[in-house]
Amino acid sequence: MILIKPDRLIADLRELASFGKVGTGVDRVALSAKDIEARRWLMKRMSEAGLQPHLDAVGNVYGRSSGTERAILIGSHTDTVPMGGWLDGALGVIYGLEIARAAAESGGSLPIGVDVISFEDEEGTYLPCLGSRSFCQELKENEIGTAQSNGATLSDALAVLQDAEAPLRCDRSRTLCYLEAHIEQGPRLESAGIRIGVVTGLVGIRRFRIRARGRADHAGTTPMSMRKDAGMALFRFASWVADEFARIGGAETVWNIGSVTLRPGAANVVPSEAEMILEFRDTDTAVLDRLEQSMRARVDGAAAIPLQAELTARIEPALMAKPLADTIAAAARELGEQPLLLSSGAGHDAMVLSRVVYSAMLFVPSIGGRSHDVSENTSEADIVFGCEVLARAVSKLQMLLAAGSLPHTDG
Amino acid sequence: MILIKPDRLIADLRELASFGKVGTGVDRVALSAKDIEARRWLMKRMSEAGLQPHLDAVGNVYGRSSGTERAILIGSHTDTVPMGGWLDGALGVIYGLEIARAAAESGGSLPIGVDVISFEDEEGTYLPCLGSRSFCQELKENEIGTAQSNGATLSDALAVLQDAEAPLRCDRSRTLCYLEAHIEQGPRLESAGIRIGVVTGLVGIRRFRIRARGRADHAGTTPMSMRKDAGMALFRFASWVADEFARIGGAETVWNIGSVTLRPGAANVVPSEAEMILEFRDTDTAVLDRLEQSMRARVDGAAAIPLQAELTARIEPALMAKPLADTIAAAARELGEQPLLLSSGAGHDAMVLSRVVYSAMLFVPSIGGRSHDVSENTSEADIVFGCEVLARAVSKLQMLLAAGSLPHTDG
Repeated sequence: MILIKPDRLIADLRELASFGKVGTGVDRVALSAKDIEARRWLMKRMSEAGLQPHLDAVGNVYGRSSGTERAILIGSHTDTVPMGGWLDGALGVIYGLEIARAAAESGGSLPIGVDVISFEDEEGTYLPCLGSRSFCQELKENEIGTAQSNGATLSDALAVLQDAEAPLRCDRSRTLCYLEAHIEQGPRLESAGIRIGVVTGLVGIRRFRIRARGRADHAGTTPMSMRKDAGMALFRFASWVADEFARIGGAETVWNIGSVTLRPGAANVVPSEAEMILEFRDTDTAVLDRLEQSMRARVDGAAAIPLQAELTARIEPALMAKPLADTIAAAARELGEQPLLLSSGAGHDAMVLSRVVYSAMLFVPSIGGRSHDVSENTSEADIVFGCEVLARAVSKLQMLLAAGSLPHTDG
Repeated sequence: MILIKPDRLIADLRELASFGKVGTGVDRVALSAKDIEARRWLMKRMSEAGLQPHLDAVGNVYGRSSGTERAILIGSHTDTVPMGGWLDGALGVIYGLEIARAAAESGGSLPIGVDVISFEDEEGTYLPCLGSRSFCQELKENEIGTAQSNGATLSDALAVLQDAEAPLRCDRSRTLCYLEAHIEQGPRLESAGIRIGVVTGLVGIRRFRIRARGRADHAGTTPMSMRKDAGMALFRFASWVADEFARIGGAETVWNIGSVTLRPGAANVVPSEAEMILEFRDTDTAVLDRLEQSMRARVDGAAAIPLQAELTARIEPALMAKPLADTIAAAARELGEQPLLLSSGAGHDAMVLSRVVYSAMLFVPSIGGRSHDVSENTSEADIVFGCEVLARAVSKLQMLLAAGSLPHTDG
C-alpha cells in the first residue's frame, strides 16, 4: 500500500506556488522564466524521489521510475493562466510526485512503476495542450513555427531550453494508463458536499458565430412594422436557444452566449447587424449533433431577418476509461467517500492522452467554484484526501495490472 | 394668393447645398466655417427678397418682413449632421424664403407679413435646438458656457460671430404662429404614396439604461441550474419588451434597443453584467407613462438576476396646433392631395416653438426613408409641391389671421 505524507505534499505544493507567486495566486505562464524555474525545481524533486528527470524540447518534464518496464503515468501541467490559481494543474503533478515518492518508500515489489509528468502549456499561452499533444505525436510540423503569444514566437520561447532532450513520446509499451488529478473548476462538488469527483468524460465543444442582418433605420421615424431589427432577431434567437437546449439537451449539457455586438450601436438607430458567440458542450457527440441540427434548422428558417451560423471552434468529447474510473471510485468508497461521477466541462491534458492510452481523472472541490483566478483555492484537508484516494487507486491498479486483469494499452 | 416659382426654389436649395457639399450630401455642422458662410449667403438672399436680415449671437438668421406689425414665421435650420443630407432643415428655411419672396411679389395688402428664420444647431453639434431654445428663452445661463464638441467649446465657436446682434427673442405680439416644413426622415409617406404629411405632434422620448447583474462563471464547468447569467436575463427582458410594448403601446408607439454590452464578453465565461439602452417614443404622455410603469414593474420584479432601470433622457411630447394643421391639410386637398396625418418620431425646432406660439409642421416624402446621410433625397416634384401647399396654407392663414378668426398667440 502506498502511504502518502500529507505535510510533504502540502509543503511541495506551497513551494511550487512560490514560483511566480502573486498574492494568493500564481502567474506562471508557459515558458516564462518562472515556469522554467519551476520545472527545474520539479526535476530536482523528482531526482530526490528516485525518478530519472527529463526535460524535453517543448518543455515537458518527465520523471521515470527505475526498476520496472511498465508504469502508471500520473501528471498534469505546472504552467498557469496569467494571474491564475496556485493549484489548478500543479495539484495533479505534485500528487504524482508524492505518490511516486511514497510508492518508492513503500518498498513494494510489483512490476508496475509510477512515472510522473508535467506537460507544457496546457493553458494555451502559445498552443493549448502543447506538451501533451507533442507527447502523443498530434502536433503538426508547422504549429510550433507559427504559434505566437503577444508578439513573441513559440520557437523563440523554446530556444531557452538549451539543455532539453528531443521531444519525449508516449511509449505505449511502458505507459499502461494515465491518471490526472485536477481541481474541479466548478461548484458541483462543493455544493453537493462531496470531496471526490470521478470524471466520466470531457465535454466536446462546438462554438458558433451567429449573425443577423437587418437594416439601420431611424428609431423615431420608422414604424415598428417597417423595421428590420437585427438586434431583436438575435435576442429572440437567444431566448429560443435557452428554451430549446433545455428541452432537447442532455442532463449535463451546458451552453453559453458570452458576447453580443449590435451595429451601429446607437440608442436611436435600429440595429442593422447583430452578432453573438454561442457555444455548447456535452460529452455525448449525439447530443452535440442534435443541438447543432436544431440550431441550424432555426437559423436556416429565419426569413424576415436572415441569420447565419459559422462554426468557429469544434473539440470532440473524450471518454475516460471506465475500469480506471471505477478503480478511483472504489478507492474513494474504501476511504469513506461516495464520489460524484461527473463530466469535465473544461479541457485537460487527459483529453489528449485518452486518444493514446487509457486515461482517467479525479477532481477535488474548488472553493466557490473559482478557478483561473488568484482567488482559486481548495482546503488542505480536501487536497490531502484527494491524494490519498489517488494513491489508493494507484495501489489497486498496480495489483490489477500486474495480474493482467485490466485491458492493456489499446486506446 | 402667393404663387411660388419652382425653378427659383430649387436653384436656391441647390446653391445652399453647395456650402459644405460632399458628393450628394452636405457636411455643414453648426458654427463651422461652411455653416456661417451659408448663413451669410442666406442673409443676402433675404435682403434681395425685401426682408431685413439679422444674425444673432447664437447664429440664428432672422429675415423680418417690413410694412406689417404681425407676421407668420416660417423656418427650420440650415446646420446639418456630419455627412448629412442636402435637404433636412434647409428645405424648411428655403420654403420660408421663397414664400416670403413670392408674398412680396404678389403685392397683397393684408396686414400679416411672412418672416423667415434659420435656427442654429438644431442637430446638437454643441446643444440640440440651441437656436430655437435661445429664441424662446429656454436656454439657461450656464449651458453655453459648458457645451463642447470634440474638445471645442461653444463659447469659442460663437466668438466668430463678431458682427452678431444680441440674441433675438420671439416677439409674441408680432409672431402669430410658426410653420416648419421638413423632410419626413422616415418611410411612411413614400410607402403610402402620399406627397404631403401634416404633423399632429412630435413624440416624447424616454430613454433608459437597463442593467442586469449576474455572476461570472466558467461556461464549461458550471451547471446551467447554478448560473446567474446576466446576458440571458437581458435577452429575455428584451423579448418581453417587444411583446409587451406591442400589446399595451399606442398605434404609433415606437421603441428601440440600439446597444447591448456583455461583460466580461468572453465566449467561455457566463456574463456577469449586461447592459442595454432602451428608448420608447409616443406623442401621448399617458402612453409613455403606461410603458414606463409596465417596464419598471418588470424590472422591479426580477429576482434571480436583479435588473435596474436608469432614466438617461426624457423629452416631453409636443402637440401641433390643430387650426394650423387643419389649414395645411385643407391647402393640400385644394391642390388635389389627401394628406397623411402623422406624428414626428424625430425632434424639430417646432417642438421648442410650440411651447411659445401656435406651431405646425408639413412633411415631404424621404426617398427610401433615408436621412442624416448623404443618400438623403426627395424628388424635385415633391419638393415643389410641398412648397406650393405651404404657400397656399400661408395665404389662407394670412386671411384668417387678418380676420381674427384663428386664436391669437397663446401657446
